[in-house]
Amino acid sequence: MTVVDLFPPSPRAAGLAQRLDTFMRQRALPAEAAFAAWDADPARRWQVSPLLEELKDAARAEGLWNLFLPDPARGAGLSNLEYAPLAAIMGRSLFAPEVFNCSAPDTGNMEVLLHYGSAAQQARWLEPLLAGRTRSGFAMTEPDVASSDATNIAARIERDGGDYVVHARKWWTTGATDPRCAFFIVMGVTDANAPPHRRHSMLIVPRDTPGVRLARPLTVFGYDDAPQGHGEVAFEGARVPADHLILGEGRGFEIAQGRLGPGRIHHCMRLIGLAERALEAMIERARSRVAFGRPLAAQGLVQAAIAESRCEIEQARLLTLAAAAALDRHGARGAREAIGMIKIVAPRMACRVIDRAIQIHGGAGLGGDHFLARAYAAARALRIADGPDEVHLAALARLHLRDPDAQRSA
Amino acid sequence: MTVVDLFPPSPRAAGLAQRLDTFMRQRALPAEAAFAAWDADPARRWQVSPLLEELKDAARAEGLWNLFLPDPARGAGLSNLEYAPLAAIMGRSLFAPEVFNCSAPDTGNMEVLLHYGSAAQQARWLEPLLAGRTRSGFAMTEPDVASSDATNIAARIERDGGDYVVHARKWWTTGATDPRCAFFIVMGVTDANAPPHRRHSMLIVPRDTPGVRLARPLTVFGYDDAPQGHGEVAFEGARVPADHLILGEGRGFEIAQGRLGPGRIHHCMRLIGLAERALEAMIERARSRVAFGRPLAAQGLVQAAIAESRCEIEQARLLTLAAAAALDRHGARGAREAIGMIKIVAPRMACRVIDRAIQIHGGAGLGGDHFLARAYAAARALRIADGPDEVHLAALARLHLRDPDAQRSA
Amino acid sequence: MTVVDLFPPSPRAAGLAQRLDTFMRQRALPAEAAFAAWDADPARRWQVSPLLEELKDAARAEGLWNLFLPDPARGAGLSNLEYAPLAAIMGRSLFAPEVFNCSAPDTGNMEVLLHYGSAAQQARWLEPLLAGRTRSGFAMTEPDVASSDATNIAARIERDGGDYVVHARKWWTTGATDPRCAFFIVMGVTDANAPPHRRHSMLIVPRDTPGVRLARPLTVFGYDDAPQGHGEVAFEGARVPADHLILGEGRGFEIAQGRLGPGRIHHCMRLIGLAERALEAMIERARSRVAFGRPLAAQGLVQAAIAESRCEIEQARLLTLAAAAALDRHGARGAREAIGMIKIVAPRMACRVIDRAIQIHGGAGLGGDHFLARAYAAARALRIADGPDEVHLAALARLHLRDPDAQRSA
Amino acid sequence: MTVVDLFPPSPRAAGLAQRLDTFMRQRALPAEAAFAAWDADPARRWQVSPLLEELKDAARAEGLWNLFLPDPARGAGLSNLEYAPLAAIMGRSLFAPEVFNCSAPDTGNMEVLLHYGSAAQQARWLEPLLAGRTRSGFAMTEPDVASSDATNIAARIERDGGDYVVHARKWWTTGATDPRCAFFIVMGVTDANAPPHRRHSMLIVPRDTPGVRLARPLTVFGYDDAPQGHGEVAFEGARVPADHLILGEGRGFEIAQGRLGPGRIHHCMRLIGLAERALEAMIERARSRVAFGRPLAAQGLVQAAIAESRCEIEQARLLTLAAAAALDRHGARGAREAIGMIKIVAPRMACRVIDRAIQIHGGAGLGGDHFLARAYAAARALRIADGPDEVHLAALARLHLRDPDAQRSA
Repeated sequence: MTVVDLFPPSPRAAGLAQRLDTFMRQRALPAEAAFAAWDADPARRWQVSPLLEELKDAARAEGLWNLFLPDPARGAGLSNLEYAPLAAIMGRSLFAPEVFNCSAPDTGNMEVLLHYGSAAQQARWLEPLLAGRTRSGFAMTEPDVASSDATNIAARIERDGGDYVVHARKWWTTGATDPRCAFFIVMGVTDANAPPHRRHSMLIVPRDTPGVRLARPLTVFGYDDAPQGHGEVAFEGARVPADHLILGEGRGFEIAQGRLGPGRIHHCMRLIGLAERALEAMIERARSRVAFGRPLAAQGLVQAAIAESRCEIEQARLLTLAAAAALDRHGARGAREAIGMIKIVAPRMACRVIDRAIQIHGGAGLGGDHFLARAYAAARALRIADGPDEVHLAALARLHLRDPDAQRSA
Repeated sequence: MTVVDLFPPSPRAAGLAQRLDTFMRQRALPAEAAFAAWDADPARRWQVSPLLEELKDAARAEGLWNLFLPDPARGAGLSNLEYAPLAAIMGRSLFAPEVFNCSAPDTGNMEVLLHYGSAAQQARWLEPLLAGRTRSGFAMTEPDVASSDATNIAARIERDGGDYVVHARKWWTTGATDPRCAFFIVMGVTDANAPPHRRHSMLIVPRDTPGVRLARPLTVFGYDDAPQGHGEVAFEGARVPADHLILGEGRGFEIAQGRLGPGRIHHCMRLIGLAERALEAMIERARSRVAFGRPLAAQGLVQAAIAESRCEIEQARLLTLAAAAALDRHGARGAREAIGMIKIVAPRMACRVIDRAIQIHGGAGLGGDHFLARAYAAARALRIADGPDEVHLAALARLHLRDPDAQRSA
Repeated sequence: MTVVDLFPPSPRAAGLAQRLDTFMRQRALPAEAAFAAWDADPARRWQVSPLLEELKDAARAEGLWNLFLPDPARGAGLSNLEYAPLAAIMGRSLFAPEVFNCSAPDTGNMEVLLHYGSAAQQARWLEPLLAGRTRSGFAMTEPDVASSDATNIAARIERDGGDYVVHARKWWTTGATDPRCAFFIVMGVTDANAPPHRRHSMLIVPRDTPGVRLARPLTVFGYDDAPQGHGEVAFEGARVPADHLILGEGRGFEIAQGRLGPGRIHHCMRLIGLAERALEAMIERARSRVAFGRPLAAQGLVQAAIAESRCEIEQARLLTLAAAAALDRHGARGAREAIGMIKIVAPRMACRVIDRAIQIHGGAGLGGDHFLARAYAAARALRIADGPDEVHLAALARLHLRDPDAQRSA
Repeated sequence: MTVVDLFPPSPRAAGLAQRLDTFMRQRALPAEAAFAAWDADPARRWQVSPLLEELKDAARAEGLWNLFLPDPARGAGLSNLEYAPLAAIMGRSLFAPEVFNCSAPDTGNMEVLLHYGSAAQQARWLEPLLAGRTRSGFAMTEPDVASSDATNIAARIERDGGDYVVHARKWWTTGATDPRCAFFIVMGVTDANAPPHRRHSMLIVPRDTPGVRLARPLTVFGYDDAPQGHGEVAFEGARVPADHLILGEGRGFEIAQGRLGPGRIHHCMRLIGLAERALEAMIERARSRVAFGRPLAAQGLVQAAIAESRCEIEQARLLTLAAAAALDRHGARGAREAIGMIKIVAPRMACRVIDRAIQIHGGAGLGGDHFLARAYAAARALRIADGPDEVHLAALARLHLRDPDAQRSA
């Protein structure tokens, strides 16, 4: 395809893309059926399938491991622009990123520990994550406040002697139900009297800490996403040593900002890969299915669905690549306009494209035979996770309204 | 509200509406939490909750029973226009229609048996349904053909002596997994050489007939809708006596047409009730939730979501009521344009409104605490069930393109 | 068409509809070409065509005159619900309402004078309007303030002895450039210290008053709508006797509210008639035009354009009829929700439908051979005139957010 | 802005962009008011304003001339990717491209003559165009056939001895009414029996050829775009020497294809510049206008309009730059997918953005005080000119449906 070579990858990134694509086609995508069968068995679905670990070993053996990590010593050392197309390839299957140790929320947590963690924190928590031996959760959102305005976050992290004690109810903590989940990074208030963006801190809370309780698993539409899952987690006086605090008191927002930029690019690129796959499924269906005496491919509305999807995917891809490049060159602050735009654009695009694919598949698109319904649920959730569309629209508008020259781009 | 009194209900319908509304608020809606708890228990979720039977008894005792049935002897004897607002009230909760013995696909099957069934068929199959003692399935759609073009239906119903033998694979047979399901009405080909609309027949196949096998349950966006469920059903040489055929060989399309009109009105009005409830939830959330220092109710995009939803619901409601009146006055053929329009309009409207409500609820809207995610799945399925949007758009267009004066309405 | 007979017109209204339709087809629509030719001649286009006066005479002779006026003595005495379908018939042609003395802004001004004018005002200003001998303007909107918030209106109407003196700049005063325009009704501040809704008054200002100056004609998408036109009008110390004030000082908003309800219904029904005609044009074009070897009528996107338009028109029509009935039964206050909805719905619907018709007509749709481009401009203007969409969305939302039960409509 | 520097311009292109931007701000945009005044004067509006010639002289003196022309000897010698951002800068004002001798249809005609014209044709017709002394028309579209399917074109170009004789009716020939228009390039059938894409040829027809008649000027919405204008042109036995044929008989489609690629990129980039200016106007209005006690900038729907517009502009810009680069690298055939996409995307984007700007401007946005209404008309026309959206959607879909791997873009 001609469009994308505008951002020509480095030779190394191109090589990785090719190997990743091969692995996806030969190993990961064919495994989906086995995972579906595993998932259909109530007796074991909350356990991790051995096949997953096997695929992880294979990926690591091929050097397709920790590709997201910009640190060349511990990860692939790729720029955001180099990694972005790789995220799209992995994103074609919802389970695949984990195969390459590139799945949220672990990626974000690894970046937090890499950039802001102490050497001791890194040794204890980061290394097992990098090795794919543990998983982790990010405990940010709360059921009782509008977390879209993060200053609302009400969890309390109280100093008590040499410890911190956590009182909180968090939800949508992805990975909370995973048997391998080793710890949570918890965002909470350490000083309610500080200025709004200095009130919060981030704390590592091991999952087996007394007072940490999985209140319940959550579903997205009807999916519980076992075994990883999304949990509501109660922190009822959970006590950890003071050295579990990351970076320092009042630094929570600073850490969150650093975590968000790459995370949004990863999410968006994965969605672009998912939308591409939905488009391919649409095309495949249109070519093979006959209704009213003609293949779907000959019907105008089906053609329009395909063409519109293509236009939307390609635009979102270019914008996300542009945001990745902006992040590489200008840092999180310089890239915030571009990153705000992709956060608005990509999930809605993916919802539209996948929804069209569902419609063209008819009943088959709604159920479990296809990846589509589950993919829709995942894409739809990302219009809410990490700030709903509306918050990002308002933030983007304010960037322009503040500075009347900002929207010019000669 | 002033808009709706344009179609002033008859005194009897008004009385029923009021009692139904009271029952919904006092009995049915409060039971949703209990049903959710029942559903969360893997050990019994495929059984029918005793609470449901209790609510059914209460509804029947209050005369809120079989309200859909136009036959005054066996049902409420209401016109479609009278019944439509009652369907909207029941539709506010996904499980509620069954409480009043007004849920699909039983309603359609009861109408088929009432209008086209023999006395013996009525005695054996209709009466228990009317009494709410059994349930039933409608086995129409097939996985291997585009059933949107019903002439594609490939199931074979072969005469063999005094029997018919069925070879078919059907799916999306709602109720197939319900333990009370007593029989299926199966659509299949009895004469492949007849003209396209005379090839098919409808046959009653008791569920316990040898050769009938539930191949698997199906999900809609992750929901299996236990215990009613949606099944893929294999008919592998299932043999039933010839008197199980409804109306006669080659009459399948004729029966289907008579079944569809009221069924679409019921579906659409239920969706309108569901969308109304989503709007109420949106309003409630907007009034109670604070973000960025202001209640959501003060934010322009939230206001617009509410106002747009209101406009869309009201328009869809008026159109559906108009279609109901057209069906009452002009019959299925005279009402086909209006019914085609509501089939296009109402499910998409409900999807939009519910989706907005999900967005305003944030994470809470995606999960199981609210009715919203499940409601979205149900509304989305109705853009496909019973013919996808695209088929109805094309059919509606052809009505106009054939007869250039048809679109005038002085 | 089956949908609309749900609001069966009274026999008298039905008879009027039939005669009006006949007149439109036999006299008014065929005159469009002559008006276009008149308009193309720069020498006379700002004069009124004699053909128009001829058509007016014919319409009046047939009793198709002042049909909008609810007063049976001076007009047709029809309810809003009775008049609404007649407005749709007239609205099929942009110039036609004037033929029947039913065009804005004269209709609104006649209603103001009928309901609120003194006997002397009625004798001098209302009677010639009713007779179709004069025309008038409504001078409300101002270039320098956001008139969507009418409390912003800054025009000064100052008492000076037995006179009022007006200082104002108004624009979008439709009819200001018409040679027959006899007077303006001017909205302005008489008491800047009164509560916001008691500050303004309405004053009759004869057009030939010294100090009244047509600053310039305005265009809508390039159309100046000669000879009626839209003017920017300067009132530079224009002095009129005190008895030219309508109803009393501080009553401006009260009068505006009474004027708006019927006016919005008229506007919306005319747009519905216009959209219907656009749909008919679409169908005609689709049936007659061949591209890529097939008639447009066989192409899926064209079919969808037709079917979607049909659904949208019918819904808007039903909602507008519902609003008309609400206004008849419950008055302006009781109908404000319904009227707010149609103000939002109808102009956007008309824009979409007409835009689709333009697209299907290709180049022919953009120019002067078809009514479409001009119709689009007229419909688009009505998304702004009389309050932009956004103001009505917010107002409608507030109605619901204030009273959480308002959106229920069992 | 960070997004666009991803396609870093060459130093030469960057220098040109800066000088062009300066010229636009200092000379071209301030001249709009003078052009509006000229246009308002019926006596001279069909003549060319001396100010335009003065601006052209100034632009040429500064080397801002023929920037579109890839030929370094006769033009700027820029690649499509280099020229694209310059087109966006010029496109901010509808009249500005002509100032730099970069306006359609002359640019396309110059490219045709450059690539396919004989030396004699170039000397006689190309040189005066390059010098800005003449203008030209492109006579392709016909009123009587669906020209979106160019094989429908019915104009006859008949060989008669040493001449060709043209019988045709063409319309939407932009520039036909311009007093400087020297010739038309006419597309017509030379051999009706050849294969469809070998039937047509292109012929130079001097405007003063006997038998060439301007049937009438056309309008787009209400704009006649004097003095350039859009004409319906009759060719009634117009006779020209045979050496006026370009390239050879039957080469018409080949020439058209070569003309279209760059032309579409120019159109789309100009629209992007126009949309950007509309967004700037929106922001300026939002910051300065107060309604309901708050600046528009504080209102959620206005913010959303700004943010959505920003996202849409940026995506369309990236896609168009990608298409320009594809054209540079892969030629017209290799870039056809990307060019098909921008043809679909950019005009619709511009319509949406400009329409939002109109809405935010209220009445001021509809009239002549702002560039917005005229800009809307221009953008809307480009959804039809050069093939309607629907044709491009279908063509793009077919590219994918033919080759199932085409949509992949790893």
